[in-house]
Amino acid sequence: MLEKIDEDAETVKEDRVNRSATIEDVARAAGVSRQTVSNVINSPQIVREETRARVADAISRLNYAPHVSARRLRTRRSSTIGIHLDPYAGGISGVVLDRFVHALTEQAGERSLRVMLYAARTPEEEIRRMGDLREGGEIDAVVITGTFPGDPRAEWLLERGVPFVSFGRPWGRDDVGAPSHHWVDVDGAAGTAEATRHALATAGPRVAFLGWPAGSATGDDRERGWRRALDAGDVRAAGWTPIRVVSDENVARARDVAAHLVASDEIDAIVCVSDSLAVGAHLAAVAAGRPALPIIGFDNTPAAEALGLSSVEQLPEEVAVGALDLLLGGAASIEHRAAEPGSAHVLVEPRLVVRETAPPSVQP
Amino acid sequence: MLEKIDEDAETVKEDRVNRSATIEDVARAAGVSRQTVSNVINSPQIVREETRARVADAISRLNYAPHVSARRLRTRRSSTIGIHLDPYAGGISGVVLDRFVHALTEQAGERSLRVMLYAARTPEEEIRRMGDLREGGEIDAVVITGTFPGDPRAEWLLERGVPFVSFGRPWGRDDVGAPSHHWVDVDGAAGTAEATRHALATAGPRVAFLGWPAGSATGDDRERGWRRALDAGDVRAAGWTPIRVVSDENVARARDVAAHLVASDEIDAIVCVSDSLAVGAHLAAVAAGRPALPIIGFDNTPAAEALGLSSVEQLPEEVAVGALDLLLGGAASIEHRAAEPGSAHVLVEPRLVVRETAPPSVQP
Repeated sequence: MLEKIDEDAETVKEDRVNRSATIEDVARAAGVSRQTVSNVINSPQIVREETRARVADAISRLNYAPHVSARRLRTRRSSTIGIHLDPYAGGISGVVLDRFVHALTEQAGERSLRVMLYAARTPEEEIRRMGDLREGGEIDAVVITGTFPGDPRAEWLLERGVPFVSFGRPWGRDDVGAPSHHWVDVDGAAGTAEATRHALATAGPRVAFLGWPAGSATGDDRERGWRRALDAGDVRAAGWTPIRVVSDENVARARDVAAHLVASDEIDAIVCVSDSLAVGAHLAAVAAGRPALPIIGFDNTPAAEALGLSSVEQLPEEVAVGALDLLLGGAASIEHRAAEPGSAHVLVEPRLVVRETAPPSVQP
Repeated sequence: MLEKIDEDAETVKEDRVNRSATIEDVARAAGVSRQTVSNVINSPQIVREETRARVADAISRLNYAPHVSARRLRTRRSSTIGIHLDPYAGGISGVVLDRFVHALTEQAGERSLRVMLYAARTPEEEIRRMGDLREGGEIDAVVITGTFPGDPRAEWLLERGVPFVSFGRPWGRDDVGAPSHHWVDVDGAAGTAEATRHALATAGPRVAFLGWPAGSATGDDRERGWRRALDAGDVRAAGWTPIRVVSDENVARARDVAAHLVASDEIDAIVCVSDSLAVGAHLAAVAAGRPALPIIGFDNTPAAEALGLSSVEQLPEEVAVGALDLLLGGAASIEHRAAEPGSAHVLVEPRLVVRETAPPSVQP
């Protein structure tokens, strides 16, 4: 467990052992404010000489060590969480991880924790970085992202007993009942199922799926949600065979793949595994003279918003709260759709953001 | 100046004062590798008992303190740069700052520097955060972003002598010749001038500008580049009065504003102050039956790429290199279009990314 800096708790605890002076002790002893003590340490030139001398005397008498490293040395805790950033790769959906980093930074700040970034191009490089920072006492815990089956990072962290949580499932045999480590993830299948139900209710029974090639854990999970909703909706009974086409994560190729799909009159809507593919499908639909064809993306990126496409929103803010709750031992102070207390995972249910596809009418 | 961790230099210097044992000293004394020492410290269970005892003995004899905080206490240096992240606000152009953070993390890592994030909603909150981290010795220097005239953060940092560099000009009287502090910025006017010259050469003389309302330093700068290129291109001589319209940073409103512009036959191309506005203008052009109207954005975001729009690329990677060079005293080891050595600023010249607007042909 990562411990929060809790000044009060620490003070109480240290009274019984080897209590160190705090900045408040110095302020009280010198008869000045906390800010003045801080000024004497950081900007002595702006403090009156007499005040400066009084504060300096109190610092000396109380043996006050303002440097956080002093506490780190005593506690061997940095209250800092490490997280790696990939090199910027562009693409429509890259924004999701950046949103998560924003949210993690904000939520960590509210818990008096720090976030330290490190760059890594491969899992092996990430392991080296984590090792260096951990060895240096610069981080107490890490968050890993983009987990995959057989992820060497999880194994490395487990072996060394480093507290961590992953954004992404371990993708092992029983992730939910007996996961190999703490994790937070977004329930992709629930998201595509909701998108599919919405399309069935508003567009018609023939809802196609534009996915990634089989074999990506995330993509397969999202496809399952579409199938589940179609089955529940009794679409096969209506005599239509569900259509599924695939493209890699590329707008232009998705447009090409979707061209055949939208040119025929065999579908009422398309649910997509990502916003990149949804944008490609939308461009194909516009080209085929069907700009209002309902197309639903995944990730609710600025690109989907700009084009007025509905999309499944991952709620990275809830993922960040879940990750910190797990690291800190399940404080569960902030609402999220988590599993039971004491659970080793948080599965965030995404939310469909519905946009009216109101394409600008063509003017002469 | 922020100093890099330079193990060799530090060792040499400390030999003359109060040299501390390094991990290499311990490895040598115990006759094992550096990695084995690291394992004994971090994962003793994986090291053979006899080796473990030998390393532990060497650590004890040399009084080796593996914790980086020990060095921090001696040097009062953390080799860590702080940078704040705004709460995620969405929008097409938010990705530029995230790209900069990616690049800064990567470039800092190559210089053995750390990057620490903190959340702040206002300049005042950012100042409090910087103060806490600085007081705690957790950061040596900061990078501020999104500067504006009268920025209180710059004043606060200058008063306290905290090393810093801004991504964004000080926006004072003589930013380039006698800037109030180190800064890196992208030459927005050069970017829009290049975009305008490209449009003049390939689309026709009537190049309109879709900008932000006057008064934003960045927006006014980008507008100047458009005017400069038009003037140099002798467009007024051709009897056309340059058209400039404005919208705030919103796709839907930009579409409305651009609707009048694209409906008439009075323009050959539009240069835009941002990709959000370019996407809006493109949607208006599609609606008006002119999907191939050349529209050039700014920031080269995934949204512009997805729609096949040309856009001015800010090169955040060069901005990050420039920021670190200034913080470290102008190492200038990596290529960028910087000013002369010893200069207090780096002005990065952006690059126009030209895309063929090849809208999917409308099929029956």
